Amino acid sequence: MTSSPPPARHPTTAPHRGASRHNSPSSRLDPEIAARLKRSADGLLPAIAQQYDTGEVLMLGWMDDEALHRTLTTGRCTYWSRSRREYWVKGDTSGHVQWVKSVALDCDADTVLVKVDQVGAACHTGARTCFDADVLLKEAELGVPARSEHQDQ
Amino acid sequence: MTSSPPPARHPTTAPHRGASRHNSPSSRLDPEIAARLKRSADGLLPAIAQQYDTGEVLMLGWMDDEALHRTLTTGRCTYWSRSRREYWVKGDTSGHVQWVKSVALDCDADTVLVKVDQVGAACHTGARTCFDADVLLKEAELGVPARSEHQDQ
Repeated sequence: MTSSPPPARHPTTAPHRGASRHNSPSSRLDPEIAARLKRSADGLLPAIAQQYDTGEVLMLGWMDDEALHRTLTTGRCTYWSRSRREYWVKGDTSGHVQWVKSVALDCDADTVLVKVDQVGAACHTGARTCFDADVLLKEAELGVPARSEHQDQ
Repeated sequence: MTSSPPPARHPTTAPHRGASRHNSPSSRLDPEIAARLKRSADGLLPAIAQQYDTGEVLMLGWMDDEALHRTLTTGRCTYWSRSRREYWVKGDTSGHVQWVKSVALDCDADTVLVKVDQVGAACHTGARTCFDADVLLKEAELGVPARSEHQDQ
């Protein structure tokens, strides 16, 4: 893997020269924040997008330092696409924009939670969220004792 | 990295002999599900835990096939601890159990969403969620035009 992703394609993802998926000193992310991040081996953090008012978990994307910087400063949720190897401003192609409402790091500084106002479908399939279609377990199917019976275990 | 994690320590995490962080044939996960999963390089999926009724995003953990199997079949949310290299049944040490309500895969089969009933604090710091303490951006701080003004971009 190279350390310099290709320039982003979209007008609102103007390439930041020298941006890197790793903790590049050229990322414009606040150094105080950057110093705290605990990134995966490929320099990324999982980022959970949640609809700010309904609480729906919409999707999970990935951010490097620069994507987090853009998410914090542009009002548009911006990811690093691992498959396309470019910055991805959610909605630039589909119109299904995620307007950023708030951004938080978790206690280990290795995960981002972005509360957004999602325009239309979050999922590329057209579903409202990426978790709508493939339910592995519904509550009624859980073949285990009810909660009260668990307490003795 | 080895392919065989050490046995889990807790009574409710009885070791599954041969369990692996990779797609081991010895995982007890339904083969139809296992065949669809797109795992990270270390054989894991990010797993988002969400409070089923309030919608709070509580934390993000990691699951291998066997952890997902246990989550689907035991009623207790079970992760793979990357730092301790063992299965981690949430609440076994703290009492802060996550009772599983539903489990879904996302559209790419590379992320798990587990809706749970969280007992007490989800975060090891004592906070209700792992995202309570480190807010990088609140809505009022967003120094960008309001949504309507964005539409022309």
